[in-house]
Amino acid sequence: MKARVFVTLKNGVLDPQGKAIGHALQGLGFDGVGEVRQGKVIDLELAERDAAKARACLTEMCEKLLANTIIEKYEIELKG
Amino acid sequence: MKARVFVTLKNGVLDPQGKAIGHALQGLGFDGVGEVRQGKVIDLELAERDAAKARACLTEMCEKLLANTIIEKYEIELKG
Repeated sequence: MKARVFVTLKNGVLDPQGKAIGHALQGLGFDGVGEVRQGKVIDLELAERDAAKARACLTEMCEKLLANTIIEKYEIELKG
Repeated sequence: MKARVFVTLKNGVLDPQGKAIGHALQGLGFDGVGEVRQGKVIDLELAERDAAKARACLTEMCEKLLANTIIEKYEIELKG
């Protein structure tokens, strides 16, 4: 089973990388760009075939390693 | 309109960060983890309301700034 995990900064946490991208886009002449936030995406291949178990396992991975839950939030997407 | 852009390394391009995550997960006792690849996710707020125009604009942003198209590929997701 393939899975995709998004790890992004929580709302309210300053995101200098996102700000830098926003400014660079403006500098290149892209108008109408509002807030920009940057995060990580992690694609995993799992041997687990049961969706519920895979999700539980991924949640544990996020809590233990993939995300710093003090400042980051995560989303899990299973791709069957 | 909100948009999400994924920038990930092309298949075949070595991904040491992904490998490091894979090894760390194994070290934590997560078995059955196959390939792991890490990429970037960029969330943008756009003033543009037309989906086709927004997509065209985002494609240009990716080609010009967000992705290094020699080694990276990008996906664009519009969130209405």
